[in-house]
Parts: sequence; structure tokens; C-alpha cells
Amino acid sequence: MHRADVIEILDGTHPRVGRGVALAIYGLIVASAVVIAVETLPDLSERARGVLQGLELVILAAFCVEYVLRLTCSAHPLRYALSFWGIVDFVAVVPAVLFLFPDLTTVRSLRLLRLLRILKLFKANRALDRIAMAINRVKAEFLIFLFIACVALYLAAVGIYHFEHLAQPEAFGSIPESLWWAVATLTTVGYGDVYPITVGGRVFTGVILLIGIGVIAVPAGLITAALAEAGHDRPEATPLDPDPDKRAG
Amino acid sequence: MHRADVIEILDGTHPRVGRGVALAIYGLIVASAVVIAVETLPDLSERARGVLQGLELVILAAFCVEYVLRLTCSAHPLRYALSFWGIVDFVAVVPAVLFLFPDLTTVRSLRLLRLLRILKLFKANRALDRIAMAINRVKAEFLIFLFIACVALYLAAVGIYHFEHLAQPEAFGSIPESLWWAVATLTTVGYGDVYPITVGGRVFTGVILLIGIGVIAVPAGLITAALAEAGHDRPEATPLDPDPDKRAG
Amino acid sequence: MHRADVIEILDGTHPRVGRGVALAIYGLIVASAVVIAVETLPDLSERARGVLQGLELVILAAFCVEYVLRLTCSAHPLRYALSFWGIVDFVAVVPAVLFLFPDLTTVRSLRLLRLLRILKLFKANRALDRIAMAINRVKAEFLIFLFIACVALYLAAVGIYHFEHLAQPEAFGSIPESLWWAVATLTTVGYGDVYPITVGGRVFTGVILLIGIGVIAVPAGLITAALAEAGHDRPEATPLDPDPDKRAG
Amino acid sequence: MHRADVIEILDGTHPRVGRGVALAIYGLIVASAVVIAVETLPDLSERARGVLQGLELVILAAFCVEYVLRLTCSAHPLRYALSFWGIVDFVAVVPAVLFLFPDLTTVRSLRLLRLLRILKLFKANRALDRIAMAINRVKAEFLIFLFIACVALYLAAVGIYHFEHLAQPEAFGSIPESLWWAVATLTTVGYGDVYPITVGGRVFTGVILLIGIGVIAVPAGLITAALAEAGHDRPEATPLDPDPDKRAG
Repeated sequence: MHRADVIEILDGTHPRVGRGVALAIYGLIVASAVVIAVETLPDLSERARGVLQGLELVILAAFCVEYVLRLTCSAHPLRYALSFWGIVDFVAVVPAVLFLFPDLTTVRSLRLLRLLRILKLFKANRALDRIAMAINRVKAEFLIFLFIACVALYLAAVGIYHFEHLAQPEAFGSIPESLWWAVATLTTVGYGDVYPITVGGRVFTGVILLIGIGVIAVPAGLITAALAEAGHDRPEATPLDPDPDKRAG
Repeated sequence: MHRADVIEILDGTHPRVGRGVALAIYGLIVASAVVIAVETLPDLSERARGVLQGLELVILAAFCVEYVLRLTCSAHPLRYALSFWGIVDFVAVVPAVLFLFPDLTTVRSLRLLRLLRILKLFKANRALDRIAMAINRVKAEFLIFLFIACVALYLAAVGIYHFEHLAQPEAFGSIPESLWWAVATLTTVGYGDVYPITVGGRVFTGVILLIGIGVIAVPAGLITAALAEAGHDRPEATPLDPDPDKRAG
Repeated sequence: MHRADVIEILDGTHPRVGRGVALAIYGLIVASAVVIAVETLPDLSERARGVLQGLELVILAAFCVEYVLRLTCSAHPLRYALSFWGIVDFVAVVPAVLFLFPDLTTVRSLRLLRLLRILKLFKANRALDRIAMAINRVKAEFLIFLFIACVALYLAAVGIYHFEHLAQPEAFGSIPESLWWAVATLTTVGYGDVYPITVGGRVFTGVILLIGIGVIAVPAGLITAALAEAGHDRPEATPLDPDPDKRAG
Repeated sequence: MHRADVIEILDGTHPRVGRGVALAIYGLIVASAVVIAVETLPDLSERARGVLQGLELVILAAFCVEYVLRLTCSAHPLRYALSFWGIVDFVAVVPAVLFLFPDLTTVRSLRLLRLLRILKLFKANRALDRIAMAINRVKAEFLIFLFIACVALYLAAVGIYHFEHLAQPEAFGSIPESLWWAVATLTTVGYGDVYPITVGGRVFTGVILLIGIGVIAVPAGLITAALAEAGHDRPEATPLDPDPDKRAG
């Protein structure tokens, strides 16, 4: 087996085993995400904790093997090691230190690095490339609207502060605190922990909502429009599917 | 009357009585849905229960007759029986067992099978076919965004857990519990049963919302765009109307 | 002054005074809406009540005069009286009976007829005609989605009922009661008066939201798409402006 | 250095230092916004207050210098002074009076004038011009829908008042108070401070939501559609970037 074949297999572009390996890596990443979440459950039995630790060990080992294989089989090991995905692959195996030195409680925060593995889900995925391209096309408007949204949130917070801070000094004690109300309101989440009670504050809320909802909703609309358009001149879609074309050459 | 006529009548495509029969079947399905809902009202009188049971009996009888007719009049009875709609039609009459053996409390859960009848509303409806086609066209992007939405929900849950679980060990006790907050927040439902109270958690919520709302809103936008486009090259629309063309030949 | 001129003036299409009269009628309708709302304030002074009653009298008188003028000056009085707008104009002056027989408390509900005057805001407005046309074009899809939305709400209610009615017999006591939760959730309003507390109910809510939000959001998107398209082949827009072209001939 | 160069530098269009000066002015405006917000924090130390006042002094001085430079270096000082941006620039330095006469507590409200500086963020920004043009194109439909939205809110408030004011005289005491519910509901914010509890009120809410959500969501959709279209025939985007072309000639 050639070294290039190993890379192909790991990239999921190998004609025979590529698909299986790609699915296995996806499976490991999802398992990793589940382990990270389940670990935080407060009343896990000792047994469950053991199973989770075992799973974590398997996942770490698999990613270590992957990293070493990629490093040794790559045509340009250093270039790979310093590339974006090379760094992601490396960081994903750093938490292995925790198993080598289990008593170092100070390195516990290394566990969070495991989250970076989720990034690997987006590697070598052609359908996501297309979406990234569509988003790239509306990037300028997207940034402008993020900027307008921030100005709108700020002005909403200043406005409601002046209407409500005398009536509700707890909830609207300052403009930064009022920003929390502005975020929850203009995104239409509306938890209900803070809301205006004065007539002025309510009228202000109504006006700001009628105008401001559009501002917050536009970015999503822009991406959708770009995607809908990008879809027109595309031959076929292969979601979440490693791309055999990339192998060419 | 030929056997093919019977099928035509039941499909609602018969030129004379088709429309009436189709409406009658739609009516029965809606009545069935209403019966299922009203049955659960806690303080129904004995009389009302009797009426509901009577209605249920009529509905079941009608669907039994429909199934038997379709089976006996079909050109290929076995092919019908094993087709998707054949199985739906069959399952829709299974709850009849409850009337034959009323004391079998263990088969009570069969009642839920009645819900499958609602599926029949979508049978032989041409306008729905067009929508299904439009959705099919954006299926790839739709699945990708469902996947991105799940990743976004997961990351939001992990993030808020780290910001809030010390301040609110009840509401944000673990990452799986924090997922409930992520779902209610990114969909902008915002029940208000759980919400961040720390400054870090609130800033995180604001950032995640400004970015994340788009992710959740895009699938709906994609379907809309596909529908709007599909509408361009369509002669006329006949919603909820059985299609006379299908009969041709 | 010819009788046709009177109709022109009232329609707001008269070259000289048309615009002024149209604005006056719009003003009266808005004043009428304000009076209806303010009347319900619980602690109004006697003086304020007097002012409101005076305003109501002026509004009624103006609409009575309008109706009589339209009836007497129309080329076909009977045709006008039986037309849609003729009936609206008539019903709008019916509450005058309350002033003639102020002691008939039984006819108090006639007051609500005053709300119909708001309909007159939409009379002879060309910009609204264009919107009506755009909506008409997507009517078929709109109705289908309203139908799908109703099915989605029903199924959501049935589902949450089975997950939650044992844990929360108060809030989810029956399927019709659970419908209230389904409405508040799928529209993303999320008042927070009822929400799932079981793990199953929360997972179900997450799944139903990821799928269902699209269903509820599509109708708005369809109208928007139709409007955006209608805007392409339109020369210029004159919102809320009586249309001088209609006068032609 | 010519006087025209000074204007160019301040406008951020000077080839060498333009960009730096533009970023510095943006920085000052953002700092100004932060100062306004942070000042309202209730338990600031004396030291922090001192820092804020120092920052405010620097910002005011910078804008005073900018204003004087623009006035003296402009080719037409009076025309500038009376132009829109000339007035904004002037008003932005008015709060300087507070430093000259610190004891005049009656002019404290002048502080709010500082908010107007945020307007300057939108000056000489080409990307925003494009968005303004797109919005301008759908202005007519936008206004119509704002009008329809107001009618919808009014009718929703009247409706819910009649269903709920007997059951909840506190929350739905009058139509103007019910408007608060209508705003929070139709925008899907749903704080949860007021919500219907009668069966009639809940059914009404469901119906009004299924119809009304579209009305509120359409304006945002219109702007998005206009933006998506405007993006088609545009060469490239330079967000938040002062435009070097404007200098030409």
C-alpha cells in the first residue's frame, strides 16, 4: 500500500474503503460530542463513568493514530502540520495528556479542546463548500447588517433605559443591563424575565419592534437568497458526502 | 358498474361522484381527528362518550368498507395491499379490533394508530405533489442546514453550560439539560423557564443569537424560495382538489 | 356642481379637492378607531366621556352625510346600495341608532359595528390592489400551507399530550388544551405559561420545532416573494394615495 | 497643506492618511457610545467616573477640533454649517457646554445629544448607500405593510379585549392596554406577562397568529429581496470602508 493511499483512505476519497472510513470518523466525532455532553450529568454511576472514560480512550487513540498516519504518510509532513486542518487534528489529540498524567487537575480545562474535533465534521465536505461560497457572496451585506443590528440593539437599550429605569431599577438599572432586554426582545426570544411596564416603555417597544425585527431577520434572508440562487446552476447535490472528484490527479 | 369505477370513485377521480366521495372521505378523516382530540377531555359526560364511540364506529366502518372495496376491486390486489397507501389504509382499520374485544385493555394503545388516518389527507392531492417536488429540489441544502442547526444547538448548550451551571445548578445542571435552553432560545420560542443570569451567559446568548437565528431560519427560507420558483412555470393551481387528469387513459 | 362631481369628491379622485376630502375621511376613520379604543379605558372622567361622545357624534354625522350623498348622487343608487362598499358604508352609520334611542342598552353591541369603518381605509387604494394581486397569485400555496400548519399543530398537540399529561395534568389535561401549547410554540411566541418538563416532551418539542418552524414561516415568505416579483414590472408606487387614473372617462 | 486636503483627511478619502483618520473617528464614536452606556452603571467607583469624564473630554475635544476644521477649511462654510451633516457635527459638540458650566444641572439632558454622534457612523459609507437604495426601492410596499401591521395590531387588541377583559380585568382592562398584548404576540416576542386564559381568547390568538405573523414578517422579507437583487449587478463590496472614488475630480 502506498503512502498516498493512506491519505486517501483517511480523507474518505479512496474508491473502495473511503466511504466506510469517512463514516467511521464521523461516527467517532459524534460519539465524542455525546461523551462530552453525557459526562456533565450530575448523578452518573461509577460504572457509567467508566464506560465514558473507555469511550474517550478509544476516540483519543483513533485520532492519535489518524494524526500520526497523516503526518508520516503526507508528501509534505511539515506543510500538513502547519496547515489549518493539521493544527485542528493536532489539537484534537492534545487531551490525551490527561490520560498520561491523570492527577494534573490543572490541565482539566484541556478537556474542552475535545470540542474542536467537531470542526472536523466540516472537513472535506463538498455540500458545505457550496454553502460557504453562497455565504461568501453576501458577506458584505451580512457584516453591514450585523453592524446595523448592533447599533439597533444599543439604541433600543438606551431608549428603554430612559423609559423604565425609574419604574424598574432592578431590571433596567443601567444601559448595559438594558442591553439584555434589547437582545431578548429584538431577536423575539422574549424570555419574560424583563419587560417594560410603563406606557412610554411599551409604546417604545412596539415602535422598535415594528422597525427592528426586519434588521435582525435580514441576514438570514440574505443567506437564503444566495443559497437559492447558488442552487440554480448546480448539477447535483451530495450532502455530507466525501467528494471523489478531489482525488483527481 | 365496473371494478375500475369503484377505485375511481374512492380515489375521487370519478367524473360524477368523485368530488363528493373525496370530500366525504376528507370529512371522515377530520372527524376522526376531532374524535381523537375530544376523547381526551377529562370531564366528558357518559352521553358524550357514547356519541364519540358511535362516531368512531361509523368512521371505522367506513374505512373498513373502503379497504375491502379497494382490495377486491383493484386490478392487482396484492400489489395494492403491499403498497405504501395500501399499508396506511390497512393500519387505519386495525383499531377496529378494539370494538371486537373491548376488554383487552392491553390493546388500548392501538387507538393511536387512528392518527395514521391523517396521512390519508395527503393522498391523491396534486397541490401537495407540487410542494413535495419543490421541497425535494432543496433537500440537500435542507439536510445540511438541519445538520448545522444540530451542531449550533450542541455548541450553544456546551457554551451556556460553562457560563451558567455554577450560578444556576438547577436549570443548567448538565449539557443535555442545557440543550433544552438552546432549543427554546435559538428557535426564539423563549418560554422563560430557563434563561442566563450571569453577565458572561447573557453576552454569550446575544452573540449566539445574532449568528444562530439565521441558521434556524434558513431551511424555511429555502423551501419558500423553491416554492416561489416552482410557481412560475405552473399553469394553474387547484388546492386540495382531486386531480381529474390522473384518470386519463 | 354635477352629481358625478360629488361622487368624485367623496372618492378622492376630484382633481382639486379630492385629495383633501380623502385625507379627511381617512382622518375620521382613524379618529373613530381611537375613540373605540379610548372609550374602554376604565377610569375616564365625565368630561373625557363627553368629549368622546361628541367626537363619535361628529364622525357618525359625517358618515351619514357621506352615505346620503353617495346614495342620492350615484347614477345607479340601488346598485350602489347593494354593492360591497355600499353595504359597508351603510353598516358604518347603523350605530347612529344608539344616539336616537340612548336608553336601549340591548343595542349596545351595535357599537362594535363601528369597527367595520376601518374597512373603508382599504377602499380605493391602488397600492393595496397590487398587494391583493400578489397575494392572489400565491393563494393556492398559501391555503395548502395553512392546511399543513393546522395538521402540524394538531399532531404537535397529540404528541405533547402523550408526553406531558401525566407529569402536568393541569397544563396538558387534554389534546384540545395541548393545542394552546402547540400554537404558542410553533409560532415561536412562547408565552411560558405552559411548557414541557419531561425529557421526552422536551426532545419532542425540539424535533417538532426544527421541522415545524418552516411550515409556519412559509406563508409569509410566499407573499414576500410574490410582492418582490410584482414590484419588478411596476412603473411607480403611490402608497395610500387615491388613484387619479380611475377617474378617466 | 491645502484646505481641501484637511477636508479630505477628515472625510477619510485622503489617499495616505484618510483610512487612519476615518478609523480614528469611528473609534471615537464607538468609545462615545461605550462611555454613555457605562456611565449609567449604578455602583461605579470615583476613579472609574474620573476615567469616563476624561474620555468624554477627549472625545468632545476631538469633535470640536473636527467641527472647527471643517468650518474653516470648507470651500463654503455656511453651506456646510447648514447642511445635514454640518448640523449633526455641530449638535455632537453641544454637550461641551456641560464642561464649561458643570454646575448647571438643568442642562444635564444635553448629555443625550451625544447619542447623535452615532449617526456619524453612517456618514460617507458606500455600502450603506447601497442598502439605502435597496430599501428605497421597496419603500412603498414597506409603508403599506407597516400600515397593515398597525391595523392588524389594532384589530387583534380589540378582539382579545372582548374575549379576555372579563376574565382578566387587570391585564386586559382596556383596548389600549390590550395593544401591549397584541404587540408582544404578533411580533412573536411573547414575554408571558399577559396571555389569554379563556378558550375563546386562545382560539382567537391562534387564528390571528396564523394569519398575522405573515403581515409582520413581510417587511423584512421585502428588504431582503431588494438587497439580494441589488447584489446581482454590483461589481464588488467594500463594507464600512470609506470610498476612494468619491474624491475623483
